[in-house]
Amino acid sequence: MILEVATLQIKEGQSTNFEAAFSLAKEIIAASPGHISHELQKCVEDKNKYLLLVQWETIEAHEIGFRKSEPYLKWKALLHHFYDPFPTVEHFELIHTSV
Amino acid sequence: MILEVATLQIKEGQSTNFEAAFSLAKEIIAASPGHISHELQKCVEDKNKYLLLVQWETIEAHEIGFRKSEPYLKWKALLHHFYDPFPTVEHFELIHTSV
Repeated sequence: MILEVATLQIKEGQSTNFEAAFSLAKEIIAASPGHISHELQKCVEDKNKYLLLVQWETIEAHEIGFRKSEPYLKWKALLHHFYDPFPTVEHFELIHTSV
Repeated sequence: MILEVATLQIKEGQSTNFEAAFSLAKEIIAASPGHISHELQKCVEDKNKYLLLVQWETIEAHEIGFRKSEPYLKWKALLHHFYDPFPTVEHFELIHTSV
């Protein structure tokens, strides 16, 4: 299992619109093969900053299965115009969990 | 509920020692009032980078209850010498989850 962490910086004044667009876009990522779960978190210290945390079965499920898919074009159209700068994305492996 | 996200950059060659120290330190944070759960994630793209994700009942449980506590001195002694630079820490509120 792989955790994708995308740091999203939203253009000033666009956070409400971004959240509305995300509520549509989330169905796209949730339907992608290898998607396990995801959450959208909003930063307390910076109201224009969000984290998208996605659990994938493998990195390939994210980088190839999702990003090279037809539905990803709709995801991009819904979300990418909100970002400035473009998001940084990294992948993580679980070392320890308390639960 | 609040998610603390600490981005940890570990000194070159120290990641095994850091993980061993964390396996001791985790008992300290787990015992802190208001701690709900935590996980340590290791970056795939940067072997010296980790994310510590902690669910707290409130920000105060983290910033006051944990950081101003006596056991935090032991946490610091176990972990802080591994970091370079010193970690960035932010707090997040859940906007949406698929589970």
